[in-house]
Amino acid sequence: MTEAGGVVPDMRRVHGDATRERIMGAARALTAVHGLDGVTVGRLAAATELSKAGVFAHYGSKEALQLSVIEQARGEFDAEVIMPTLEQPPGLARLRAFVERYLDLVSADSTPGGCFFTSVGVEFEHRPGRIHDELVAIRSSWFEQAETEFRAAQAVGEVAAAANTEQLAFEFVVLLQGTNLAFQLSRDHRALDHGRNAIKALLKRAQDEG
Amino acid sequence: MTEAGGVVPDMRRVHGDATRERIMGAARALTAVHGLDGVTVGRLAAATELSKAGVFAHYGSKEALQLSVIEQARGEFDAEVIMPTLEQPPGLARLRAFVERYLDLVSADSTPGGCFFTSVGVEFEHRPGRIHDELVAIRSSWFEQAETEFRAAQAVGEVAAAANTEQLAFEFVVLLQGTNLAFQLSRDHRALDHGRNAIKALLKRAQDEG
Repeated sequence: MTEAGGVVPDMRRVHGDATRERIMGAARALTAVHGLDGVTVGRLAAATELSKAGVFAHYGSKEALQLSVIEQARGEFDAEVIMPTLEQPPGLARLRAFVERYLDLVSADSTPGGCFFTSVGVEFEHRPGRIHDELVAIRSSWFEQAETEFRAAQAVGEVAAAANTEQLAFEFVVLLQGTNLAFQLSRDHRALDHGRNAIKALLKRAQDEG
Repeated sequence: MTEAGGVVPDMRRVHGDATRERIMGAARALTAVHGLDGVTVGRLAAATELSKAGVFAHYGSKEALQLSVIEQARGEFDAEVIMPTLEQPPGLARLRAFVERYLDLVSADSTPGGCFFTSVGVEFEHRPGRIHDELVAIRSSWFEQAETEFRAAQAVGEVAAAANTEQLAFEFVVLLQGTNLAFQLSRDHRALDHGRNAIKALLKRAQDEG
């Protein structure tokens, strides 16, 4: 570490970080309306009042920009949905907390696009490449995390020993994503209640299933 | 009716219908890759080897073209998924037939985009207008049709008298759409098995639920 390293911030970097943050904020808003592929350098330049060259200089390629948007959305999802659930003990309590945090997030007025990963997953499902692979990996991690919690619940007897935790995890994720879809198109809050009831029935089945 | 009306077809119309069919075929293929909003006159012209003016002459506006694509997809869905289920008696048999037809359709190699209405629904969920309204109406009709079958099943004692048919219909549709999503991104056929198992558990609950 240089002598200055710990004391004087590199103002060029600070400035660069602020600009990147501005670009990211605009990119997230554009994704909600136009999809991730609709986040073009031209639209970003218009939204941030930077030049096209200025936007391009910060990312170098459209794919790099798109991967950054995904990375940022993932960080937010972890902070807003995943992390708070860790305050609960592993198992059903954590799954129940996840349901509340997820449905709150996707129905919030501050999240106009609903579940980022559902929308962008649909957008890229048939376009092979790095974006697709990244989205598949994120999706798989959800199924795995859900299964980990069902297994933890099984270990303490909250879930029947004979229950198929892989199947339960599949239904858990699919019901939540489907509830998000139903809510986004209709903006009808009954969809959220139906979603909560569906999860309640699933967790009851997990407990009873022999 | 003129004397010629029943005998000599209007060749201009026949030609026009064939061209419209060619445009529609290209539009469906483009939707699977680029989304409904990615069906531009330029791309259609390139795919059909017509001039841009030639494509435009058949539809007049992008919205009219998009509504035609939706109409065509709906007709296909009715023919391939809904109609065959009517061979079954109302109730659970018809719902089970729907599950098989739907999962066959969305996993077929000939349906590269998966469920048209899921993808286009996500694409237009936050864009007010006629396309959005049309998609909301189609989606509502699915929930209603599913509930009609659950009620028919209830009337003949296949479903418990105390069961909430609105809730069951919600879960039925949401599980199928969610299974489609899971399959499209992963192309993993286990997702289809998980989806079938989920519906089986739902129908069992419908029968048992007091």
